[in-house]
Amino acid sequence: MIVLGIDPGTVAMGYGVIESIDGEVALVDSGAIKCRKSISIGERLCFLYQGLGKIIDKYRPDAVAVEQPFVAKNTKSAFAIGKAQAVAILSAAINGIPVCEYTPAQVKQRVSNYGASSKEQIQEMVRLQLGLSDVPRPFDAADALAVALCHLGELHVTGLLAGY
Amino acid sequence: MIVLGIDPGTVAMGYGVIESIDGEVALVDSGAIKCRKSISIGERLCFLYQGLGKIIDKYRPDAVAVEQPFVAKNTKSAFAIGKAQAVAILSAAINGIPVCEYTPAQVKQRVSNYGASSKEQIQEMVRLQLGLSDVPRPFDAADALAVALCHLGELHVTGLLAGY
Repeated sequence: MIVLGIDPGTVAMGYGVIESIDGEVALVDSGAIKCRKSISIGERLCFLYQGLGKIIDKYRPDAVAVEQPFVAKNTKSAFAIGKAQAVAILSAAINGIPVCEYTPAQVKQRVSNYGASSKEQIQEMVRLQLGLSDVPRPFDAADALAVALCHLGELHVTGLLAGY
Repeated sequence: MIVLGIDPGTVAMGYGVIESIDGEVALVDSGAIKCRKSISIGERLCFLYQGLGKIIDKYRPDAVAVEQPFVAKNTKSAFAIGKAQAVAILSAAINGIPVCEYTPAQVKQRVSNYGASSKEQIQEMVRLQLGLSDVPRPFDAADALAVALCHLGELHVTGLLAGY
């Protein structure tokens, strides 16, 4: 199973692709689609949408997991996060790929078994779970991988609860 | 010149298409793309995106004007507005159509010459400016027409200031 995790932003869209085979999880690809702040919001959303579209075309994920914060610094920031989330969700949904949203607390809980972990602790857990020598960079990529791992963890627990 | 105005929402996306020929403005089409609240956010954003895509394909607007609030009831609502705005902006930008955003106060100022007009006053101004016998329904459509008229007004003022 291939999962694409997305850490949505209107300037940098973090992405992380992981594959799970027989309970073993491996990193496939990760990075961040970054666009210049100086271009218009229309050009930016297009750039991010088309960038995610290329990643989806390349890896054909079975599921897409998107980070969905509950809080924002201010209303302006909440509008921007909403825009980035929409681009991420639409990129998946338009390709018929199921989308799940997870709050930062859910991601922390699933990845580190502790809902109040620090960003650094989560990045270290991502490194360990994927057997990497270093924490993936940029941090948007590490955050996106954490969301993807959260989704796999969620599927695992749901499966256990369902008695699979 | 054909302008598509959009009043963005994740449940109802109001749209209004107007045409300006030699200073005369006429209504071309208006309405609201509505989706069931029960479907997933992915399905909803797809539905709205594809719905707006059909309107853009049909009328090939020269410009798209989107309402951009500065305030929201709460953070959850701000995220939802941001998502709807992204769908509207992306629908235009992906088709290479320039997008302008206007705050409710800017729309009110341009359409009624008074930034603190009531919703009813704006709807009445839309009716008068388009020479209609009734205020367009649903209200999302009237709001979208107001944004489109605001854009035409803005172009007019910009043109006057530039000495055209």
